[in-house]
Amino acid sequence: MPKLWNETIEAHRRAVRDTVLDTTATLVAEHGLRGVTMSKIAEESGIGRATLYKYFSDVESILAAWHENQIHAHLQQLGELRDGAGSAEERLEAVLTAYAHIQRQRHGHGAELGALLHQGEHVARAQQHLTGFVRDLLSEGARSGDIRDDVPAGELANYCLHALAAAGGLKSKAAVQRLVDVTLAGLRPVR
Amino acid sequence: MPKLWNETIEAHRRAVRDTVLDTTATLVAEHGLRGVTMSKIAEESGIGRATLYKYFSDVESILAAWHENQIHAHLQQLGELRDGAGSAEERLEAVLTAYAHIQRQRHGHGAELGALLHQGEHVARAQQHLTGFVRDLLSEGARSGDIRDDVPAGELANYCLHALAAAGGLKSKAAVQRLVDVTLAGLRPVR
Repeated sequence: MPKLWNETIEAHRRAVRDTVLDTTATLVAEHGLRGVTMSKIAEESGIGRATLYKYFSDVESILAAWHENQIHAHLQQLGELRDGAGSAEERLEAVLTAYAHIQRQRHGHGAELGALLHQGEHVARAQQHLTGFVRDLLSEGARSGDIRDDVPAGELANYCLHALAAAGGLKSKAAVQRLVDVTLAGLRPVR
Repeated sequence: MPKLWNETIEAHRRAVRDTVLDTTATLVAEHGLRGVTMSKIAEESGIGRATLYKYFSDVESILAAWHENQIHAHLQQLGELRDGAGSAEERLEAVLTAYAHIQRQRHGHGAELGALLHQGEHVARAQQHLTGFVRDLLSEGARSGDIRDDVPAGELANYCLHALAAAGGLKSKAAVQRLVDVTLAGLRPVR
């Protein structure tokens, strides 16, 4: 079945956009924020400079779009782990482990890029969304007796996400796993 | 015994400086960073504008000096708790509780001021110093069997300080105490 012309155009635009986003992220990772220009991005993406400007007005807005995609993908990944099989405690561990690895990865982008990207309102919204769903998992775990119920689930969620931000400075995957274990130990019912 | 002239001058200068720092901190807390001028600071400190400029060149440098004083005072307070009486675990709890309350207080300064002040190199140095001495307390606790020894003390210190940063968003002292309890629970030996 042949695609409609509009769909073809739309698919093409999305493909160009994705290429630009990925190319820019790679260039910034390699050369730093100041080492990347619109000309360089156009060249590496295999499109003309004029075309690039039809999509984005500057490097910052490309990075903001890339970052929003990243956050969306991370939330989707964490949401799938939350909705997976297993007890509330198992799903909580899966979500927190994935979140810790994301924190470690994120740190790799460097402080300059991190500061630029983390000002956006979409970051605050994503953080709120994430806190909410970790809180729900914790409430579920408290009802089944796997998670302590002497501290409000919202406070425990806040504790988790702050503690796991420590993954940003960790060198190895084993250290990230230890951090998740220690964080989870804080959540267990007090005997 | 009469003071030497130089000592009198020095004491006077220190007193003026301290007054300016405290006045500025109060003004910024009340009116925000943009609502405070050198003229206003001079007026509220009870000195002339020309005199104020002999001490500081702008509002930002006054705030930086005030913040350095604050950090110094906090580190001294935490150091005294570390060197106090009691087991390693008790002293660790005292240090972490005080640190959590400092984090909560700090948050009260507002995001704008926080971002301005926390860029300084002295903040990174203070953080390093603090991590080091929490790590030493944790090592001591691990030797006496009160703290888990299956995770390196440096990683546990990193976990503690990140987890307690969650105190920044807490409304009550009781919630801060619950956060400290949860954080400490993560540090106990695994049975």
